[in-house]
Amino acid sequence: MLILMDGEHTKANLAEVVARVEQLGFKAHVIPGANSTAVGVTGNPGPLDPRVFEVLPGVKQAIPVTKSYKLAGRDFQHGDSAVEIVPGLKVGAGRFVVMAGPCAVESREQTLRIARQVKAGGAHVLRGGAFKPRTSPYAFQGMGEEGLKILAEARAETGLPVVSEALDPESLALVYKYADVIQIGARNMQNFALLKEAGKLDKPVLLKRGLSATVDEWLQSAEYLLSEGNKRVILCERGIRTFSSHTRNTLDLNAVPVAQKLSHLPVLVDPSHGTGLRDKVAPLAKASAAVGAHGVIIEVHDRPAEALCDGPQAMPPAEFAALVEVLKKLGGVLGYTM
Amino acid sequence: MLILMDGEHTKANLAEVVARVEQLGFKAHVIPGANSTAVGVTGNPGPLDPRVFEVLPGVKQAIPVTKSYKLAGRDFQHGDSAVEIVPGLKVGAGRFVVMAGPCAVESREQTLRIARQVKAGGAHVLRGGAFKPRTSPYAFQGMGEEGLKILAEARAETGLPVVSEALDPESLALVYKYADVIQIGARNMQNFALLKEAGKLDKPVLLKRGLSATVDEWLQSAEYLLSEGNKRVILCERGIRTFSSHTRNTLDLNAVPVAQKLSHLPVLVDPSHGTGLRDKVAPLAKASAAVGAHGVIIEVHDRPAEALCDGPQAMPPAEFAALVEVLKKLGGVLGYTM
Amino acid sequence: MLILMDGEHTKANLAEVVARVEQLGFKAHVIPGANSTAVGVTGNPGPLDPRVFEVLPGVKQAIPVTKSYKLAGRDFQHGDSAVEIVPGLKVGAGRFVVMAGPCAVESREQTLRIARQVKAGGAHVLRGGAFKPRTSPYAFQGMGEEGLKILAEARAETGLPVVSEALDPESLALVYKYADVIQIGARNMQNFALLKEAGKLDKPVLLKRGLSATVDEWLQSAEYLLSEGNKRVILCERGIRTFSSHTRNTLDLNAVPVAQKLSHLPVLVDPSHGTGLRDKVAPLAKASAAVGAHGVIIEVHDRPAEALCDGPQAMPPAEFAALVEVLKKLGGVLGYTM
Amino acid sequence: MLILMDGEHTKANLAEVVARVEQLGFKAHVIPGANSTAVGVTGNPGPLDPRVFEVLPGVKQAIPVTKSYKLAGRDFQHGDSAVEIVPGLKVGAGRFVVMAGPCAVESREQTLRIARQVKAGGAHVLRGGAFKPRTSPYAFQGMGEEGLKILAEARAETGLPVVSEALDPESLALVYKYADVIQIGARNMQNFALLKEAGKLDKPVLLKRGLSATVDEWLQSAEYLLSEGNKRVILCERGIRTFSSHTRNTLDLNAVPVAQKLSHLPVLVDPSHGTGLRDKVAPLAKASAAVGAHGVIIEVHDRPAEALCDGPQAMPPAEFAALVEVLKKLGGVLGYTM
Repeated sequence: MLILMDGEHTKANLAEVVARVEQLGFKAHVIPGANSTAVGVTGNPGPLDPRVFEVLPGVKQAIPVTKSYKLAGRDFQHGDSAVEIVPGLKVGAGRFVVMAGPCAVESREQTLRIARQVKAGGAHVLRGGAFKPRTSPYAFQGMGEEGLKILAEARAETGLPVVSEALDPESLALVYKYADVIQIGARNMQNFALLKEAGKLDKPVLLKRGLSATVDEWLQSAEYLLSEGNKRVILCERGIRTFSSHTRNTLDLNAVPVAQKLSHLPVLVDPSHGTGLRDKVAPLAKASAAVGAHGVIIEVHDRPAEALCDGPQAMPPAEFAALVEVLKKLGGVLGYTM
Repeated sequence: MLILMDGEHTKANLAEVVARVEQLGFKAHVIPGANSTAVGVTGNPGPLDPRVFEVLPGVKQAIPVTKSYKLAGRDFQHGDSAVEIVPGLKVGAGRFVVMAGPCAVESREQTLRIARQVKAGGAHVLRGGAFKPRTSPYAFQGMGEEGLKILAEARAETGLPVVSEALDPESLALVYKYADVIQIGARNMQNFALLKEAGKLDKPVLLKRGLSATVDEWLQSAEYLLSEGNKRVILCERGIRTFSSHTRNTLDLNAVPVAQKLSHLPVLVDPSHGTGLRDKVAPLAKASAAVGAHGVIIEVHDRPAEALCDGPQAMPPAEFAALVEVLKKLGGVLGYTM
Repeated sequence: MLILMDGEHTKANLAEVVARVEQLGFKAHVIPGANSTAVGVTGNPGPLDPRVFEVLPGVKQAIPVTKSYKLAGRDFQHGDSAVEIVPGLKVGAGRFVVMAGPCAVESREQTLRIARQVKAGGAHVLRGGAFKPRTSPYAFQGMGEEGLKILAEARAETGLPVVSEALDPESLALVYKYADVIQIGARNMQNFALLKEAGKLDKPVLLKRGLSATVDEWLQSAEYLLSEGNKRVILCERGIRTFSSHTRNTLDLNAVPVAQKLSHLPVLVDPSHGTGLRDKVAPLAKASAAVGAHGVIIEVHDRPAEALCDGPQAMPPAEFAALVEVLKKLGGVLGYTM
Repeated sequence: MLILMDGEHTKANLAEVVARVEQLGFKAHVIPGANSTAVGVTGNPGPLDPRVFEVLPGVKQAIPVTKSYKLAGRDFQHGDSAVEIVPGLKVGAGRFVVMAGPCAVESREQTLRIARQVKAGGAHVLRGGAFKPRTSPYAFQGMGEEGLKILAEARAETGLPVVSEALDPESLALVYKYADVIQIGARNMQNFALLKEAGKLDKPVLLKRGLSATVDEWLQSAEYLLSEGNKRVILCERGIRTFSSHTRNTLDLNAVPVAQKLSHLPVLVDPSHGTGLRDKVAPLAKASAAVGAHGVIIEVHDRPAEALCDGPQAMPPAEFAALVEVLKKLGGVLGYTM
């Protein structure tokens, strides 16, 4: 912590700051200056709330120095992490991983059909929601365990591992049972009870960034998973909420290199939710590859007009296959395999 | 739903839109115009996803007309709702209700002491967190059931009903057992599993607005509670996330009259979390009264420097009592009682 | 400037930072710590760009300490400034000042009529736009000098001083000639050429906050005016752009106490542009008074349906007069005169 | 315009809406429905302010149908526009155009040196600021006409056409005199007086998107240029302001395909200002190419530590040349030339 005194502070103010630091059991270092005075704090075992000092008279600002994510950050792990999904398939190890499938499992027939199509189109992982977080209580809420069984059947047929979203302790147990990767959605990024539970499991977690989460908060949510023992965490940027409403969300590709610099965890991008518009998914998927993401997760539906959920952002299978072809070619320039 | 065709649409595009509407079982009304053509949709029982039509060629935009919150909106209930917390204390019935107390229950002694102080200062309800949602896994997470027991003891002594936050099904059952009002926090506003559970209970729910939630989404989350049968829902504005970082959040007082126009539910304001800064709480609390809110919820601590949580935004008891005095006088001008 | 080294910095990194500081002619103070190392910079005559140091290897962050607004800030002027508009009328001296009038001067008849109405309703200053910044080139752009002459005539009749907006050097000269207060609008808050010109004039300037301006940037724009010699600057909060679209802008009342703490300049609020909705203007005007603003500026029109500009946010004269009555009564509680 | 009545409107409300439409000289079409009633408006020559109707009792919402940018939109020009900068160099005609150079002209020597470097590295256009819009009045404001003369000398030597920013009428005349492309910066995107002047000139204009501008507002600003007669307008996305502060701005690549769908004008991207961080420029430049932009504008400096402006976001010449090589290779996959 570095505490900056304001231009009008008195000697008594400074003494109070020093006393407060020492009362907490830490060490205070006064740094005098021509225009300003600061106090450095050392000896604190973890991050401090800057406002503890900012409420003291004469203090202008307090700046945390210690990071609050030790396991997600690069202080203790300098190299990049690769997360194994199933034997032979790692995210973050030089391969651009493509996850694809319908927004929601709607029926056995629909899911098997689309699973075959995305497999043929080049996907590495099958996505599909059995539990759907819906803004309105009157919208389709997913098929539940029945949907997970269908996904497991699709895996058995296609060989594609499955990623699916958990919403609460109950659905978490079921997703853990049937899927290969547990997705924590944007709305639950700070559902800390759910994060703690998922952190105790031995399957990889795909952690989506919240709509209004900073990269720091995202990494602190990852820290919840890591600190419980689950080291297989994959980050996923999926669009943030801004004033800009020409797309459903504002896909923030800046966050990809930023998160990669701060953290060793692999970073995927979800251009389907990030834009919410089918014709914007392919350009942003290519941009995701170019910006250095470790993969994408894409919604595919062969009959989007019939989709019970997010049909308008689903890509037709033929377009998906064509996109994968371009992504492969881009890998030749950008230095990844697929 | 109103569907606007773009300037380049063909007759075939228009026919496809009409066919799609009819295929869904609804009725299409074509409205020709000099500069534009539109298609009105009627007969739909509930709201439609505009993107179902926006992906069709030639369509510029589709605008939902049917509201997706029937119970939270004013279509079926025109007058304002008053929510009874305990016999003799209603929110939304001409009285400006003040909830106050520490951010977190830290000890029996601390909570009883502050409870007496806020009672003396004029509070109607005691607030205090036993389960704390913390961004970092390493921060103080609350005293749990022990904290709730302390709050119940404070109620027994002061007579103040208690509001406390639930985070997951387990803590929800405990908060229901000990508290009078169940708080759903901003981070859980779209934790739909939690909302459904709380909607089945027979105690009032204080539903905070999410950091990046529109008023529409907020009311749809209220709809989750109402549609499960719990009619005692109190809304609470607590600041949104914007580019503006001079306060911790941007308390959005505009949302108060907006929510009151769209919904019959009472609306409180939390200026402590909304600003995150002690010296901004009193001005924004007064502004909350002036803008027409039905009450405020304020963090009070007599030893903020020792607080385990959010000390910097806590108001000292003497300042709180002075604020309540001003709020009472404002009621004489603004037309509420306290 | 305080420079924080990251957890992986080497001794060579630290030496380079120190060398860079010294090369710029300043003094470097190394502050070692258990978890972190920092370097304090002193001797710099003005603010430094933090990125000058942040690009050096091993640097985590650089935090500016010196403020970049000396004249707008409180370092050299501790007491509040009161800005005299005309003899006997000061903003920021214990009086809550109400400016009111039509969005735009549309005709002699309309302006004189409304001027009389707002005078009768209790306004202290007449507002009216002769030069209108419009998003679309096809919208009504204002009556220009003719409009200013009408405003001057309205002043002669009612005795109300006049505030009107300038857009460029040409309109600035005209507004200076006819009006008593020069308004710089939100879209021009960072039109630095215009600010410099206005800073050379001897009439007060009402400086609106930009739609996406931080309070710091707002004060730096005020600094442009002050540093050119114009000391009569009035700040005006008028709503920021956020994801929240239930009002046209998000009126940020938090900014009022924040700006007042950082700056000695008086702060007005414009709830008409801030909300864009007539029925939200009165509640937010009352909230502006309660939060501690020094006044409000309100659009009034007696025939809003005919208004060429922003009719939907204009308040009818009778409602305006009723609002002024409430504002006066609030002054009895809040401690201002009108 | 489509006007949606709310669920509680009366027949009298509906009649008033129809009367208001007819009073304005347009035609009203009532569309009854089971859940809602709407009124279509036709015959209006241009866009209407929705709030004209939204203030009438019983009206829920009014939605504009007519676009307010006729010349910038695709209604009257379906194919893409290519903007010729100098004979042989067009933006938007299958070629990915790279503009590069220092943030500011700091000296003759510096500019000539960097101009040679970016020429060698593969740039098509030289950028450099002679007039700098700076947040603080105490920051370096540019060399003015002297700087433009240096840029002209650099053009004479390297053959690269020059783009430079104009801030006001005076600097516009000078930039017009010396440069090949006139840049209107983000802060001046809604400086309508400046836009009108630039619209009268016969040199291309690079119009940057404002920090908080929607794509619609951006295109309306382009309309100011086009409606004055200047058809050579190039759009440039340069980052928007969001809550996310890990980069200086949030480069919004979503805006590229959105603007391209709505408008025929070519779209460049400025990843230097968009991210503000040198190490993020290359990944975002590659992503700009992948998302389908028509080019990029990049800040290059060989001695960033000495730069008077934005050194921390400047890319070293060697890195720039390497980036151009990658961009060329990406063109082989993405289908553009360089």
